Amino acid sequence: MDDKVREALDRLFYPRTVAVFGSAREGKIAHQIVTQLTRGGYAGRVVVVNPRAEPPEGFPGVQAFATGCEVDGRVDLAVLALPAQFAEAAVRESGAAGARVAVVITAGFAEVGNIDQERRLLSAARQSGVRLIGPNCAGIMNSANSLMASIEVRARPGRAAFITQSGAIGGAVLGLADTRGVGFSKFVSYGNRADLGETELLEYLAADPETDVIAVYFESVTDGARLLPVLAAVAEAKPLIAVKAGRTSTGQRAASSHTGSLAGDDAVYAAAFRKAAVVRAAGIEEMLDLCEAFTRLRPPAGRRLAIVTNSGGPGILAADHAEELGLQVAEPSAGLRSTLRELLSERCGLGNPVDLTVEATGSNFERALRLMLHDEYDAALAVNVATPFLDSRALARAVIAARDALPSKPIAAVFAAGTVVAESVDVLQQAGVPCFPTGERAVLAIARLRDREDMLADARRARTVPRQAARDPGGPGAQLPRGSHHPLSSVSTLPIAGLVLEPDGWSFLCGRGFPFPAHRFCHSREEAARATSDSSSVLRFPLVMKVVSPEVTHKSDRGGVMVGLQETAAVTRAFDEMAARFAGASFRGVLLAEQVTGGLEVIVGIKRDPVFGPVVLAGLGGVWTEVLHDAAVRLAPVDDEEALGMLGQLRSAPLLSGIRGSAPRDTRALAGLIARISLLAVEHPEIAELDLNPVSVLPEGQGALIVDVRIITAPVP
Amino acid sequence: MDDKVREALDRLFYPRTVAVFGSAREGKIAHQIVTQLTRGGYAGRVVVVNPRAEPPEGFPGVQAFATGCEVDGRVDLAVLALPAQFAEAAVRESGAAGARVAVVITAGFAEVGNIDQERRLLSAARQSGVRLIGPNCAGIMNSANSLMASIEVRARPGRAAFITQSGAIGGAVLGLADTRGVGFSKFVSYGNRADLGETELLEYLAADPETDVIAVYFESVTDGARLLPVLAAVAEAKPLIAVKAGRTSTGQRAASSHTGSLAGDDAVYAAAFRKAAVVRAAGIEEMLDLCEAFTRLRPPAGRRLAIVTNSGGPGILAADHAEELGLQVAEPSAGLRSTLRELLSERCGLGNPVDLTVEATGSNFERALRLMLHDEYDAALAVNVATPFLDSRALARAVIAARDALPSKPIAAVFAAGTVVAESVDVLQQAGVPCFPTGERAVLAIARLRDREDMLADARRARTVPRQAARDPGGPGAQLPRGSHHPLSSVSTLPIAGLVLEPDGWSFLCGRGFPFPAHRFCHSREEAARATSDSSSVLRFPLVMKVVSPEVTHKSDRGGVMVGLQETAAVTRAFDEMAARFAGASFRGVLLAEQVTGGLEVIVGIKRDPVFGPVVLAGLGGVWTEVLHDAAVRLAPVDDEEALGMLGQLRSAPLLSGIRGSAPRDTRALAGLIARISLLAVEHPEIAELDLNPVSVLPEGQGALIVDVRIITAPVP
Repeated sequence: MDDKVREALDRLFYPRTVAVFGSAREGKIAHQIVTQLTRGGYAGRVVVVNPRAEPPEGFPGVQAFATGCEVDGRVDLAVLALPAQFAEAAVRESGAAGARVAVVITAGFAEVGNIDQERRLLSAARQSGVRLIGPNCAGIMNSANSLMASIEVRARPGRAAFITQSGAIGGAVLGLADTRGVGFSKFVSYGNRADLGETELLEYLAADPETDVIAVYFESVTDGARLLPVLAAVAEAKPLIAVKAGRTSTGQRAASSHTGSLAGDDAVYAAAFRKAAVVRAAGIEEMLDLCEAFTRLRPPAGRRLAIVTNSGGPGILAADHAEELGLQVAEPSAGLRSTLRELLSERCGLGNPVDLTVEATGSNFERALRLMLHDEYDAALAVNVATPFLDSRALARAVIAARDALPSKPIAAVFAAGTVVAESVDVLQQAGVPCFPTGERAVLAIARLRDREDMLADARRARTVPRQAARDPGGPGAQLPRGSHHPLSSVSTLPIAGLVLEPDGWSFLCGRGFPFPAHRFCHSREEAARATSDSSSVLRFPLVMKVVSPEVTHKSDRGGVMVGLQETAAVTRAFDEMAARFAGASFRGVLLAEQVTGGLEVIVGIKRDPVFGPVVLAGLGGVWTEVLHDAAVRLAPVDDEEALGMLGQLRSAPLLSGIRGSAPRDTRALAGLIARISLLAVEHPEIAELDLNPVSVLPEGQGALIVDVRIITAPVP
Repeated sequence: MDDKVREALDRLFYPRTVAVFGSAREGKIAHQIVTQLTRGGYAGRVVVVNPRAEPPEGFPGVQAFATGCEVDGRVDLAVLALPAQFAEAAVRESGAAGARVAVVITAGFAEVGNIDQERRLLSAARQSGVRLIGPNCAGIMNSANSLMASIEVRARPGRAAFITQSGAIGGAVLGLADTRGVGFSKFVSYGNRADLGETELLEYLAADPETDVIAVYFESVTDGARLLPVLAAVAEAKPLIAVKAGRTSTGQRAASSHTGSLAGDDAVYAAAFRKAAVVRAAGIEEMLDLCEAFTRLRPPAGRRLAIVTNSGGPGILAADHAEELGLQVAEPSAGLRSTLRELLSERCGLGNPVDLTVEATGSNFERALRLMLHDEYDAALAVNVATPFLDSRALARAVIAARDALPSKPIAAVFAAGTVVAESVDVLQQAGVPCFPTGERAVLAIARLRDREDMLADARRARTVPRQAARDPGGPGAQLPRGSHHPLSSVSTLPIAGLVLEPDGWSFLCGRGFPFPAHRFCHSREEAARATSDSSSVLRFPLVMKVVSPEVTHKSDRGGVMVGLQETAAVTRAFDEMAARFAGASFRGVLLAEQVTGGLEVIVGIKRDPVFGPVVLAGLGGVWTEVLHDAAVRLAPVDDEEALGMLGQLRSAPLLSGIRGSAPRDTRALAGLIARISLLAVEHPEIAELDLNPVSVLPEGQGALIVDVRIITAPVP
């Protein structure tokens, strides 16, 4: 990252002098910030700036100045908590006093429509050499030096950093984290993100030695192309956990292709997170659970989970949920079972969960955990349900001893519940064993530890495997001038904007080596007749005829597709019918193609997402996508391996691999087609949406053929 | 319920004298129980019984006796916490001392294989007129009289009762409830359920004036037929919330039909809960959230949810999740929006959520809630994210005022988070407004309030609509003697056990008015030829021929089905081929039927569940059930309306109603068939599993025909 940004962020987190701008009377935000700054152990200097140089009540050590320029000595960090109309001046004064960064808590800018005022603020900052956090933010925190320039709840120290666009989420998370016992290294609420935002903060935190895990709450991302490589680089360096609001499709805008409507905003965010190996949390409680797990545990080498418990029910509930999340709660082998039987009491349940019953002692808890983990399991969950009369510390120590004996295998604990286990939970947490309030939450965290490894492996492989080149002979991005259709199957580039005539789409893709059945574009019945009878390159019956017209978009619904044409006479008759039916609808002719039989119909598509750029989609055609929305979405490009992964993720995947006597399909060919079309999406940003619907996937070894093409182009912004 | 059981349970919860059996030395369970009993305000008498009449250390007021018989005055409740081998004697002594009920905390009975000892204990209890809770349980609690005969965490008083099979779950729930601020009226852990169990406790609690809501944790149910009407009656009287462990199918036993494998244990429990209008919770945290919601809120009249917040992010996260759960977070109408605009500050977001921003005051919080609820919404969620410097009590009072103004509409609150809102959460809770730690959890509770109403409406309708009778002319349950097949299509009853030969199945169902294509069972090629050429009742081509053999169970896979037979010669040829192909496999002939075309293939089935009895299943055939397990399961019988509800619940439902030009199907006819087959399941308990796979559902108005029948019978236990 930029050295100046780094310097600004260093000063943000490690200031020697903080100047708080705003009225410092009790009840005012500046007063609250001074309270937070001075009462938590921060050793730097704190001054306040307000027009009457009024010092904060109750803080005799804090000097007051009338303007930022009057502060003696260099200001490192300015914190603005004064009315919006004075923010610009305060930023200029801060710059003059030496500050390189200002946290603008003040609201009333772009978030309420005052876009100009925000622009002026930013321009004042640029002119003064000051970078901004905010405006309309909830401030920042750094545990390393007890710096708390925020009015939110002060977090306990920890190894996770948390950054958030929403200040309210910041407050809610800090409050919950405190109750939950989760600590943070650094916290930043960046509000309107007029200047610095998640990109700079993530890059900084990736290199922060005080931070092991980064959690982020997004509402919107404006520049996905810039953010994505940052996410990927940061997630490679440290576990990166994201909560993204706006998951449901209530506000989904209308799309003009299947791919457009299937690859909705949330699916594209999910694809972006997956590509970058970002672990997604469903909400803020889950995010805190994941912070706890990722700061304290190594990832498991596989998905086999051992559960050791002193209590049946909670162990079973955890096992249920673990299986739903893709962990394997398999029974121990006969050998392991007999070893367990020798070492444990007769009354123990020797399955998985291992149920030590209420008689569980520290030593059999430790033994069971060690035995289970040693050979057959990748991770363990220790579940203890206590009573007010049970001292759980022995069990806590047993869990710690097992962890120490097998440090490479993650162990999580559920000690239930509340005050009766508070002390033993403390013991566990101080020893670095993460504790969860229920088994369900613990197993989710363990599953996500493993999921991240799988995403990272995919991401690494994708970086090392060279992309197969399927380059446009005309060079990427070359475009035809607007409106110049080449309807005679010689199109090698696309029009600037609008629906591409289908023969142009076929021609465009055919020329790039995409597989189609043999076909002709015929303007007249004579051309159609010749296509079936010329001796040189005759089309073989049966044939399909499709109307070509820029006005007919749903061909099938309007009788624009005729199948099963078996002889030349049928073809010319069909041509006449089409010509008559679409006489008033800019009839251009027909597309005549050999009919593909015995294929499984699949949809493959690409679209340009306004945030993340080109995405690729694949799913089974018909009801599978239309009714079940069973489609896989990835950021383009993908390679063959990733494309196979997309197909494997479909609920309808068994149809491709062949069920109940139906032939396995040529998924290799389909995956290759998906990979190549995803590359096309990158090379031709003018393609806004493209549906290949259907692609007909033939039995193994016979390939896959594109049967219908729909392309919509739009100028690249 | 039985008067004696009621008396026993009255004594259980309202004893005047409790005798605790067991060593009362410090560290022993009996000592812990005495501690719990005497330190919480329970005003009754507590005595201990142990061989040396040793009183409990530290409790000078508690007398000790050497045997139960020696206790002066009547014992109401005996609590056993002594070694298992002495439990039998203690029960007899308790009975002699007047006790009508004993809580046996002592473990070491059936749960570790000591079934005989448990039987002896039960028999001693029967002889002594003592009913048992336990053994191997965690005791009981009653808030009304501060009775705490358990070593678990004492719950705060509340209006929900909680009963649990697992003692460990009891401990975990009581501990979590305490942390969560949820109170209980009564608590019972009933352990091994040697005598009294959920049935008696549920009936008692349904009539308990101190209990508004009942929560129950199940692991296994032994007598579903007895439990189900109790669940239904209790759930009609009060909200009944259940957690059922063992949800995943790891241990699913092998089944010999599609219905058998699709209607797994968990699906049957879900069907039973739905039929009884029991609200299912996924885990114990969710159960506590539901206890909180159901004790404090009336159900919403519909699904429209208003969200009012002072903080963007948390409101959006709540809205996302609400939509996933089937609530409608629709935007306010233009009229409402303009009213809101007049009353609220300019900077407020006037959508749904209504975002009052950090400037939210009590009065605009109240106004927004009232306006939103008054006309357009059925329920509201108030979300406040506070800072340490914000006094949230004004907002809490605003929420309470809005609730008081519109008492019929449920309002839930999310006040985030932790200590900074502890006081205002107290204010809300004391006023009866439920508080949740996150918006996601709050909206789940609101959704379930509404879901229960829908389930109750279904259950009430099902009780009032008379069942259409499709009774067996031979009377229900009449059976053929073992092995006496009537292969000539005159079967009106079923064999006792085993796979029913397909023509027998067809005949059995045909005779009961179920719809089939025209068909014949043919033993010879001559019969087959006649079936197609006799002038009287000739089968019309094309025909399907299926092999009939008790040894051939997967006909299609073995070439035992031939379709598209177009003439008599083809039929006789096909017969010869079948006869040759299955010569060594007990070939009995063929089933010849008119081929059904243009139908949508559906599977309808019934099975006898060992716990809940007959269940009925419906789903689309082929991949929908085999790959997606997209099937609806209900306890039998269902009426036409419920059957339509089953079909509507399928993900594949759009295929029935017709998509993209395909004809709508005769779902009425299909629903009628499902309803009648479900009645058959009740009337013929000897049917262990039955698949109609497929039923071919024709376009609307043309009916549905059964094309394949597979019946397995088994003796009724």
